[in-house]
Parts: sequence; C-alpha cells; structure tokens
Amino acid sequence: MAIKKILALTGIRSEYYILYPVINALRKDEQFDVRVVVSGAHLSDWHGLTLREIEADGFHVVDKIDSQLMTNRTTQRVKGVGMLTYALAQTVEREKPDVIFVVGDREESIAAALVGNYMDVAVAHLGGGDPVYGNADDPIRFAVSKLAHIHFTLADAYAKNLQRVGEEEFRIFNVGDPALDTIRTTPARSLSEISNILKFDITDGHYVVFIRNPLSSEWQDAGRQMHINLQALERFSKESGYKVVAIHPNTDPGAHDIVEAIQSYKDKPFIKFYKNLEREIFVNVMRHARALVGNSSMGLLEAPFYKLPVVNVGNRQQGRLNAGNVEFVPDDLQSITQAIHKACTDEEYRAKVAELKNPFGNGYTSEKIRDVLRSIDLSDKQWLIKKNLVGIS
Amino acid sequence: MAIKKILALTGIRSEYYILYPVINALRKDEQFDVRVVVSGAHLSDWHGLTLREIEADGFHVVDKIDSQLMTNRTTQRVKGVGMLTYALAQTVEREKPDVIFVVGDREESIAAALVGNYMDVAVAHLGGGDPVYGNADDPIRFAVSKLAHIHFTLADAYAKNLQRVGEEEFRIFNVGDPALDTIRTTPARSLSEISNILKFDITDGHYVVFIRNPLSSEWQDAGRQMHINLQALERFSKESGYKVVAIHPNTDPGAHDIVEAIQSYKDKPFIKFYKNLEREIFVNVMRHARALVGNSSMGLLEAPFYKLPVVNVGNRQQGRLNAGNVEFVPDDLQSITQAIHKACTDEEYRAKVAELKNPFGNGYTSEKIRDVLRSIDLSDKQWLIKKNLVGIS
Amino acid sequence: MAIKKILALTGIRSEYYILYPVINALRKDEQFDVRVVVSGAHLSDWHGLTLREIEADGFHVVDKIDSQLMTNRTTQRVKGVGMLTYALAQTVEREKPDVIFVVGDREESIAAALVGNYMDVAVAHLGGGDPVYGNADDPIRFAVSKLAHIHFTLADAYAKNLQRVGEEEFRIFNVGDPALDTIRTTPARSLSEISNILKFDITDGHYVVFIRNPLSSEWQDAGRQMHINLQALERFSKESGYKVVAIHPNTDPGAHDIVEAIQSYKDKPFIKFYKNLEREIFVNVMRHARALVGNSSMGLLEAPFYKLPVVNVGNRQQGRLNAGNVEFVPDDLQSITQAIHKACTDEEYRAKVAELKNPFGNGYTSEKIRDVLRSIDLSDKQWLIKKNLVGIS
Amino acid sequence: MAIKKILALTGIRSEYYILYPVINALRKDEQFDVRVVVSGAHLSDWHGLTLREIEADGFHVVDKIDSQLMTNRTTQRVKGVGMLTYALAQTVEREKPDVIFVVGDREESIAAALVGNYMDVAVAHLGGGDPVYGNADDPIRFAVSKLAHIHFTLADAYAKNLQRVGEEEFRIFNVGDPALDTIRTTPARSLSEISNILKFDITDGHYVVFIRNPLSSEWQDAGRQMHINLQALERFSKESGYKVVAIHPNTDPGAHDIVEAIQSYKDKPFIKFYKNLEREIFVNVMRHARALVGNSSMGLLEAPFYKLPVVNVGNRQQGRLNAGNVEFVPDDLQSITQAIHKACTDEEYRAKVAELKNPFGNGYTSEKIRDVLRSIDLSDKQWLIKKNLVGIS
Repeated sequence: MAIKKILALTGIRSEYYILYPVINALRKDEQFDVRVVVSGAHLSDWHGLTLREIEADGFHVVDKIDSQLMTNRTTQRVKGVGMLTYALAQTVEREKPDVIFVVGDREESIAAALVGNYMDVAVAHLGGGDPVYGNADDPIRFAVSKLAHIHFTLADAYAKNLQRVGEEEFRIFNVGDPALDTIRTTPARSLSEISNILKFDITDGHYVVFIRNPLSSEWQDAGRQMHINLQALERFSKESGYKVVAIHPNTDPGAHDIVEAIQSYKDKPFIKFYKNLEREIFVNVMRHARALVGNSSMGLLEAPFYKLPVVNVGNRQQGRLNAGNVEFVPDDLQSITQAIHKACTDEEYRAKVAELKNPFGNGYTSEKIRDVLRSIDLSDKQWLIKKNLVGIS
Repeated sequence: MAIKKILALTGIRSEYYILYPVINALRKDEQFDVRVVVSGAHLSDWHGLTLREIEADGFHVVDKIDSQLMTNRTTQRVKGVGMLTYALAQTVEREKPDVIFVVGDREESIAAALVGNYMDVAVAHLGGGDPVYGNADDPIRFAVSKLAHIHFTLADAYAKNLQRVGEEEFRIFNVGDPALDTIRTTPARSLSEISNILKFDITDGHYVVFIRNPLSSEWQDAGRQMHINLQALERFSKESGYKVVAIHPNTDPGAHDIVEAIQSYKDKPFIKFYKNLEREIFVNVMRHARALVGNSSMGLLEAPFYKLPVVNVGNRQQGRLNAGNVEFVPDDLQSITQAIHKACTDEEYRAKVAELKNPFGNGYTSEKIRDVLRSIDLSDKQWLIKKNLVGIS
Repeated sequence: MAIKKILALTGIRSEYYILYPVINALRKDEQFDVRVVVSGAHLSDWHGLTLREIEADGFHVVDKIDSQLMTNRTTQRVKGVGMLTYALAQTVEREKPDVIFVVGDREESIAAALVGNYMDVAVAHLGGGDPVYGNADDPIRFAVSKLAHIHFTLADAYAKNLQRVGEEEFRIFNVGDPALDTIRTTPARSLSEISNILKFDITDGHYVVFIRNPLSSEWQDAGRQMHINLQALERFSKESGYKVVAIHPNTDPGAHDIVEAIQSYKDKPFIKFYKNLEREIFVNVMRHARALVGNSSMGLLEAPFYKLPVVNVGNRQQGRLNAGNVEFVPDDLQSITQAIHKACTDEEYRAKVAELKNPFGNGYTSEKIRDVLRSIDLSDKQWLIKKNLVGIS
Repeated sequence: MAIKKILALTGIRSEYYILYPVINALRKDEQFDVRVVVSGAHLSDWHGLTLREIEADGFHVVDKIDSQLMTNRTTQRVKGVGMLTYALAQTVEREKPDVIFVVGDREESIAAALVGNYMDVAVAHLGGGDPVYGNADDPIRFAVSKLAHIHFTLADAYAKNLQRVGEEEFRIFNVGDPALDTIRTTPARSLSEISNILKFDITDGHYVVFIRNPLSSEWQDAGRQMHINLQALERFSKESGYKVVAIHPNTDPGAHDIVEAIQSYKDKPFIKFYKNLEREIFVNVMRHARALVGNSSMGLLEAPFYKLPVVNVGNRQQGRLNAGNVEFVPDDLQSITQAIHKACTDEEYRAKVAELKNPFGNGYTSEKIRDVLRSIDLSDKQWLIKKNLVGIS
C-alpha cells in the first residue's frame, strides 16, 4: 500500500499534548510520512516557545506560520485565522499531503478545514461533536465538523452529536482522548522528586492544581474573575494548609489580564505559578493532586482518567459531557472556597468520584486512529465529496 | 429604537443581485444605517469591475478588500478567504456594526461568519440549509450556518434542514429569495428593445440563455466540458434556428478554461457572449427566453418564478431543491441537445412547467428581512451565544 | 487654499513622542485635516497599549492595523511589514490623503513609503539622512528616503547626507527634532512631585535614567548584555548611593530576553522599572537626571537639549551624529561603571557637556514642518515623480 | 568550500529571462544549491502561466507565492508586495539560504530586500543604479539598492551611480546583462521556420516587433495611448507593407486597458499578438526584425546587442542609459509613424546604429556573477552590516 503523507497542524501547548501521542504512533508506522506545521502560541516566547518541545520530540517541522498577534483586542484571533489560512495554503500546495490532521477548536482547526475544503485534501479532525458552549471556539468546532472529511471523537456521545448535525456515519470514528495515552504511559515520579523539580514543597500531597483561561464571551471580565479565584484559593489555603500549583493561561483575549492578576500573588508562599510544565512532570503533578480547580477542559476530559475531583469555576465548559467528577460553581468567593474544600476533603464525595466511569477511552486512542487512517482508501471519492450535508434521513 | 448599523459584504455580481434588494429596502428605512464592503470579483476588471455598479446604486462603500488572486490554482479561493478575513476584521473594528449581513456560500460568507464569531458581532446569513453538493461552496454554506446567528432561508425545506443540523428554531426565518423581488419590480422591455441593446437579433423569441460555471470537484475538466456544451448548443441551433444568449462564468478555478473555450465560438453568429448584463436587461432576457441551459443556480432558484424550463448540465446543483422545471443531464452531446429540444418545444412539458409552484417566495422577501431585523433585540444575549449547537432534542 | 488631508502612521511609543507635536500643530491649523493610523506595539497590552494615549490625545484614529507578531524570531518584523503594507493600502484607498506622514525607520516608515510610491500619494518622512548603523532599521531609513517625496531632517548634517545619496535639494527641509518641542513646552515638576508619582524616592536628584533596546545584528546576545548593564548599574549604585529609573525596551527581537533579565533585578531597591511613563513625567525625570545610560537614540537626539551626559553602551547608535555629550563604551562591566561615575560626578566633564551646541533644533520644529506643508503645491508633478534618483550632478 | 544555498525569486516572464542564465550557470556549478520561489504573474493563467516554463527548465521550485491580485487599481502592486513579503519570510526561515538572488525593480525585488534585511540573509541584487524614472518601479530599484548587500550592475555607468547614492565600492560588481548570454547562445532559426511557428508570414524580414507596457504615473491613460500606437503601426504598415509582431503587456495597472485596446486590432492581417513567445523563438524574431517599437526596457538593454534600432514611445524609459540606437518620441501619431519609417528604412541611420558600442556586456555575464558569488566569504560581517550608508567620503 502506498505511504500516506500526514500533515499535522499544531498551535498551542494544550492541543499539542492531545496531538502528540497520535502523530507519535503514526510516525512509528512505516505506512505514514508525518510532517508538522507549527503556528500560534508555539512560536511565542511569551508562552514558553513550545516550538522547542516539538523539535525536541524529533518531528519534521515543514513550516512555521506566525499567526499570534500581540494584542488583547478581539481582532487577535480572527486575524490569526486569516494569516494562518493564507500561509497554510502555501504549505499544503508544496507538501501535497494525503491527510491534514488537526485537533480541537482553535484557529488551526478552522484554517486546516478551510484549506482542505478548497484544495481537495482530506481533513481528519479530532474532537468534534462536543456540545460545550460560551466560547468563540465552540461554533468553530462545529463549523470544522461540517467541513472535515474524517471525524475522530473523544466520546460516544460526541459521535452521536455529529450524526445529529448531519455528518454521515461512515466518516465518524469514536476513539477516545489520546491525551489519556500519554497519561497511561508516563513513568511514575514520587512526590519528593516532583517537589524538587517544581522547587515547591508538596511532598505531603496536600495541594490542588489551578488553571484558568479566559472565556471569549466574558473576556473583558477575565482579570476581575481571576482575582476572585486567587482570593478563594488563598482563603482555602489558609483554612487547610494546602498549596496550589498554578499554570499560566493560554493566549486568548483576556489572558493578558489574567497574567496581570497573577503578579500580585506570585510571591505568596502558598502558590507557585508555572508558564509551562513538561508533560512528564505535569502528569505526575496531576496524579498526586487532591483536586483540579479553574476552568480547563482537562477537568472534564482528562481528570476522569485520574479519578480526580474538579471544581470548574464560571461559565467555561458549560454544556460539556461530565463524568460526574466535576462541580460547577460561579465566580463567587464563598462558592469556590466551599467547593474546593469538598473536593479535597469530603471523603464520601471523593469515593464516589473514584468509582466513576470514564467516557473518554482507555488510553489506547492513538492506535485506534492509526488503524482507521491505515484502512481508509482515499481514492474513493466518497471521502472528499460530502454528499449528505444534512445527514441521511 | 436605536438605529441598527448593518454592514453588508459582497464579492461577486451573482450574489450582489440577491443582496441588492435587501440592502436597498434597509436603507430606505430610517431605522437602519447600511454600509457596504466590496471585495473579490467586484474589483476585477477581468470580471467587469462591478464595483462601479454598486457605487452607481449609491451605497456607502466603506472599504474595498482585494481578495481575488489571479490564478487558476486551488490556492486561489482559500488564500482569498485568508486575506478577506484578515482585512474584514479591520473594517469591522472600525465600523462597529450591529449586524454583518452576508449572502450565500462564497468566500465572503465564511469570512464574515468568522469575523462575527470571534469579534462578537451578530452575523445574519441569507441562503443556508440548501443541500446541494459537489462544490467547495457547499460545505462552506453549512459551516457558515454553524457560525451565523440569524438565518434567512430561501425555502421552507431549507429552514427545516437548518433545524436538522442543530440550529435553534428562533434563529431561523424562511423569507424566500430576494432576487425574485427584483424580477417582480423590473419594468418590462420588448424583445426588439432588448435585441437593440444586446446588438443581437432575438426579436422572434427563439433563444435560450446559457450560463456555465466551473464545479470545484471537477475544475480540471471545466474546459473540456464547456466545449461539449457549446457543441450541443451549436447542433441544437442548427436543427432549430434558435439563438443563444451566453453569459461569462464566475471567477472560480476552471473559469479561465471556460473563457478559453469561448474563444473558438465567439465569432459564430448563432451565439453571443456577454461578460455582464445590467440587471434590468438580464431580467427581460430571462422573461422572454424559451429555456435556461448550463449549471447556474438561477435555474433552480429563479427560473421557477419565470416559469422557465431549465436544462442543468453536469454535476453542479446536484441535491438542490427543484421546483419541477429542471431536467438534469450529463455532459454528453446527445443528452444535452435532446433536453434543450424538449425544454423549448415540447409543449406538454412546457405546460407542466408553467403550472409548477414556486417554493422560493413571492417577490416580497426584502420586506420580510427588514421586518425581522427591525424586530430583533440584539441586546438579548441569546443571539450571540449559541447554546444549543446540536439543536434542542 | 484647499484643505490638505494628512494621514499619519504611528507604531510605537518612542516614535509617537516625536510625531505628536507635529500632528498636534497641524490639527490646530484649519488648513489641515489630520487622521491617524495606529499599528504595531501601540496595540499590544504587553507594551502598555499606548493606543489609549493616542485616543486620549484626541486624534481621529481611522484604522488600527495589527502588525505586531508575538514571537522573538527574525520573522517578526518583516512579516509585520508585509501585513502593514497590505492593510495600509486599504486605508489609503479609502481615506485618499494628500500626504502620508511618517517618522523614523521602523516598519511603519517603509510600509508608508511603499504605499505612497505605488499609490501615487506624497510621502513626507521625518528622520532621514541619519548615518547610524548596525540595526535592521538603518538601511530601512535610507530605503524610505529613496521612496519618500518630502524629507524633514533632524539636523543639518543629515540634510546634507540626503543630498549625498541622491535626493533632490528641493525635497529636503532641515527642521530639527520635534521631540524638543515637547520638552520645551512641558511644565516643570519638582523632584518631590516626581518621586511621588514614580513611587520611588529620588528627591535628592541622585539618579540616572536607563533604557536598553536590542540591536538587531546582535539580538541573540541581548539578554546577556542586559545582565552586564544591570550589574554595572548595581555596582555604581553601591559605590555612589545613586538610584536608577529604568524603562522597558521596545518590541524588537531580543526585547523578550531583556525583559527576562529584568526579572532578577525588579525587586532590588536601587532600581525601579517602568513599562511606560507619561510624557510629562518622563520629561521631568530627564530634566533632573544626572545622566542617561543605555543605548536609546534619545541619548544622541534629545539629551543635548537637556545638556545631559550620556553613557551609550554597546554598538547601537554607532555612526550617529554626537553633540559631544555621549561617551561610547563596550558591554563591559568595568567600562560601563567608570563611565557612569564620570558622567555623574566629573564636574569638569559635566561643565563641558553643559556648554555644547545642540544640532537638533531649538524646540520649534513642528511649526517649521507645518509651514512647509502649507507652502507645498502638490499639484506640481515634481513632487510625485522623482526624476533625479541619483541626484543632480 | 561549503556549498552556498541560493534562493532566487522570480515574478514575471520578462524578469525571468534575465534571471534564467544566471541560475542556470549556478546550478551547473557544484558549489551552489539553487532553489527558486515563483510568484506574481508566473502563476497567472491570464499571463500564460509561465510557472510551467520554470518547471520545464528543471528548477527546484520550493514555494509558489500568490501575489498577483486581479484588479487594475493602484492597490494591486503594493498589496502584492505586502503578501509577498509576509509569505517569503516563511520560505526563507525554512530554506535558510546563504544568498537571496533577485533581479530588477518589481515587487519581488523589494520583498526580497526587506526579508534579507530583517532576517540577516545576504541579498544579491542584479540591476541597480539604473537612472530611468517615471515608473513606480524606479524609486523601488533604488530602495532595493540601499537594502541589498551585493550589487550586480548591467553597465559601468550604473555601477558608478550606485557609488553616488552611497553604496560601498566593495559591494558593487559590474557584470553586464545576462539576457545577452541567452541571446548569444540561442541557436539560429531561419525566417521561414519562424514564420511557421508564429503562424504569421514574415519570411521577407519586413517586420517590426511591438511591446507596450503601462507607465505607472500615466496608467489611467494607458488605453488611449495604446490606441495611438496601434494606429501609427497600422498607418506605417499601409505605407510600407511591413508587418508587426506584437507581444502582450505585463501585469501592472493599466495593462488591462492595453489588452482591451488590442481587441479591435487582433483580427487585422498586418499585426499578430502573442501572449508569450518561447525564448528561443523570441530571440530569433528579434534577430531578424528591422526595429523594435513601444516602450519595453529591452529596447535600451538588449537591442544594442542585436544592433537593432528602437522607437521608444512615450515617457517610459526616460533617463535610462541609451547606446544610441533609441529614438524617443511622444505618443503622437505623426511622430511615431515617422520614427518607425526612419528606423526601418533610413540606411544611414541604420548603419550608425550597427556600429554603436554596447554598454551592457558581452554575453558572458552569468559566468561573472557565478565567479563573484563563489569568491565572496559571507562569514565576513562586512557583507551583512552596511556601515557606510552614505558612502565613504
């Protein structure tokens, strides 16, 4: 069988962590020639220049597309989509991939879908059908699904959602979340090892992880909300003696104000902020944590695999499939503090979380995606021409 | 009530003819401040520089965005989307419209939808839910629907399709095709007047109209197919004495080859080619024609209003709602010729066409759109936040 | 006489401070209609979002052009030129200015010059003929001069340089540095007032000002060099009791590493860092300072007006006209420390500096520019067609 | 010695004909790795899609950059510069060339110079120092020279001009025009062979070649002027029996109107228009022609090598070095006709032309460029840092 050329597009650390196990599995299979386009926050020194991580992982980076504008205005992301789309077309024309592979709902996903649609290249999209709402990303995710040719979903419920919005069943493959593959295979590290690496003493295991990203429909409020979250964490810490391992936000409008809010807390001993943690370290931080706080999608998608209680603060992640480990609370000092206490110390609640069934796969997602991509015969015109745009009734 | 600022985006003659009656109705209403962004083929001298027509119509053009690249490669349209998206964001930030209004399924529609989505401006989209397939435009149309906030559909069946793909009912308004408003209100011209204007004698009414655009999934075949169509028209003309009023194609990849094919026919007396016909003239040409041949969407969307038989050649327009006036034939000399004979001279068939019910409204669509846009209260958050992306089950 | 429409383009704080007095003088004259395009670092929250300052100054901002990419790679600035050029053409076509006015040698200057050249709009450029070298900006400055139609120079020697590189004499007007107009007219503030505003006690006047920007030919060394500078300042402070008022760098590649270097010094009591200081405050800080240290162009262009000794560290500003107040030293701990001591305390040297003649005008530059722009008759073709590109021999 | 990686940029047929012999010589030398970026009109089917020719020549095309917008407005070229600059930076970052090689004064030249300047890559520019004026290209040519690091000039007078505008002598190499290399080495074809290929009987050698491009400062007049030129050629043909081999214009604003003007002459037997002629054919057409008419730069740069009399009509090429074979006439029916008569039949004048000395080299330019590029040691910082921007006095 002819080798399939896969062009993967990645724009930000959080999404690369989902993409990595997939393209890593593909490149180990001689049927695939994997190439990578790096864009967005990966190229930003203000976000840890994670390009270096991708290069260290040994991937063949065929183009670096600058699409991250340095502003907090709402023009930022959509102009980024424009630049990315214009530039990616140049790459695709040169590389002539069989499949463009893209994850999620950010600028890269819609740019890849547009390029594939107009240039007649199959687009494989991981992460469709997720009904979360409130973010500019969410309608994008569904727009991408209407354009993409091969759908990989994280959960069975999401696969069904894709059928509901008119995608043909033969295009849809429920495979689970490849981020779990990484978690499954990451070597264990003891709490004292981690404490050394973090330069932060959490050897007693009394800590929570905190990640807060802006929500696009409320981005102008991001700074104020962050302050409330940090106050709640401080109060909780005073009451319980717990510490907080905190991760910097992504690059969306509002992120700048979140980083500003961090400034007044960065020297307090109860909390320590990290721009980036290596995957291996981060997974072990999560394994030993008592809870995850904030509004990261990991709370819904990955925490169930760790059996980790989550306090999701604010309107981000609303509408998303929830395995039962997540408590949603508003941006309110009292509510947040209470919920963290419950997540960390209510043993009955914790026992219930520990028994929940994880709907996002079993940590063997990459192999499933590889097998699907091997089996598909792209010379069959059905893949590229979407005949039943409203589904088959 | 506060005045609503409407920013309409238009990129090509065919789409402007649909847009015109709407924005004309809106500007006559003092509740609206209408501004226009002109892009794409409108700015191309190779396509008649229809910018002049928009200016002559007296609209306030607030920016001209160059997005039409001079190439026949498949990079053309998607790079155009990129440039348009980048540049339109600048216009929208300056103009601060309440509503971005856009028609159809071309580059302008997806660029407008992206800008509205990321910049929190309501996007009103006319033309969603149409299940035609085979063109790069078709998945775009559905992607736009997943991003847009207010849907105006051309037919009731299309409104239902939007619900099927998960759009909330309160966003969907079936209004019909505003192109019919123009047809309804265009003053009559006699065949001899038209013949004078066209410099082509069709006073006996024995003529068909021919429009052929490239289909993106078959664009490399566009030149060859055009030759077959022209041969068929020539044979039909020889057999019947009919003449052919032919219109140049749009700007998509393949169009260049269609224009090349025209060269060898342009001096033949049975046919005359026009780069552009003024609306008023074109409507009267259609009124008196015996049939429409080719693959223009007008065959499905407007011809029913004229009670005009249509021969749709090839795979373009497949899957689209058909009022019963359209015969689909392949790109085959014999089939095309036969179908044109039937459309022009089979009186039984023509009588049946004359009785068909037109599903695309009654020529009062603009007023309906105006009334909807007047009544909507955009301060209600429900318009901008799409909560039920898979529909309400 | 018809009103002249002036479109000024500004991209960064340092350059806006030079532009401001000019466009302020123009808008007070009813013969001019002044409009402003804001781009680059002005739109970056990471650089103080100085857009707000321009808006507070009451200018009519007609477009905001995002051109600042968030990366430290060398693609940053040149891709910015690309985006700016593409987008500015759209603005110029809409605004139809009589003159595009631009200052200096950054991305905005070359983009404006290109747009004016290809679109037949007169470009007035302030700041040509300056022979400094070593930065990517320097060849740009001369390229702009070859494209621009009206030259305003900061010093007579620079006007002569423009003639040497072939610019016609009638296009060249030596007017001085408009930044001096602002210095001249800024109300005085006492040291105790300033100390309050800065939240930094410098009431005894024992302080230096420090500004360090990256040099593009050495940008990969910017962080290391900054560390040496900060060490030297700390040693000097220990030895003398002086304090340091430090300003953040601009946005060029390398700036990120300079900001990184700042982190380890930001909590030391001898120094305080400011992202931005209001003009009025900054001028008074400079008035009372004992010396300016670093590599800012202000050391050469503005410090003579203050009679301020300058220690210019490293290769930036090499080749530039020097009024005699500047000592050039390499990035070497010992040399820097010694030179600061001399600048602050060698009274003989300070007396010599206080007597130097300032070659950059007398603080009435804006009026001169206004008068030139009033007097020029742009309908005379000589302005737009540069006939003698190698000068008149 | 390490292999030097050369990245050549080409945008249009006329410029490629100058570039071709150089990169052909370089690739035959194992010290060079030659790669090509194709942009602009090469990618346009409306201009003969000369990309195919470059590919047929066997060059390694590493990116195709769309920069040719389909409009006749003055935004066309400058937006093209913007897109080209943005996209070329991506290519250069990936390819990491030692030298960017570019010819002439079009969009490609300034984009390459900007990218090289900001990204610290040496730019070798062929064609600087030429004092022609009146076109938007002319100031661009000088701006490119101020940015480029290695200058190859077509004539000794041009080398001297570069020194006059402040370029350092060590950067300047007078090598002549490589287009002459092609002319020198093109195999001879008889007039009857050519007539067959052209499908136009010029076996008696009684014909002139006609090429007319728009002049940017007069582009709105391009159509009207073209009509006068065609009238003059028709009158001359009637009076003399001569024929005209005519070539389509380039892509600049105004070109569209020139093509429009062609329409009314394209079926007349005295003239035949060609969109493109293969180099080999074109050279032989020129060899046998009696004169060149129009305003192509070939009249000044290449015609002397053929000893061919030239009638240069209008203001294009004003100021350019003239070997004595060119008569400049205004766009006036009488003047043009007379001048063509003189050029074709005044044997005294023709004898004088035949004896003129050609200042543009001897047809061995490519070898000279190759030898210079071999000998240069780019690790010497003098090449990249332009220290003496106003020349060494």
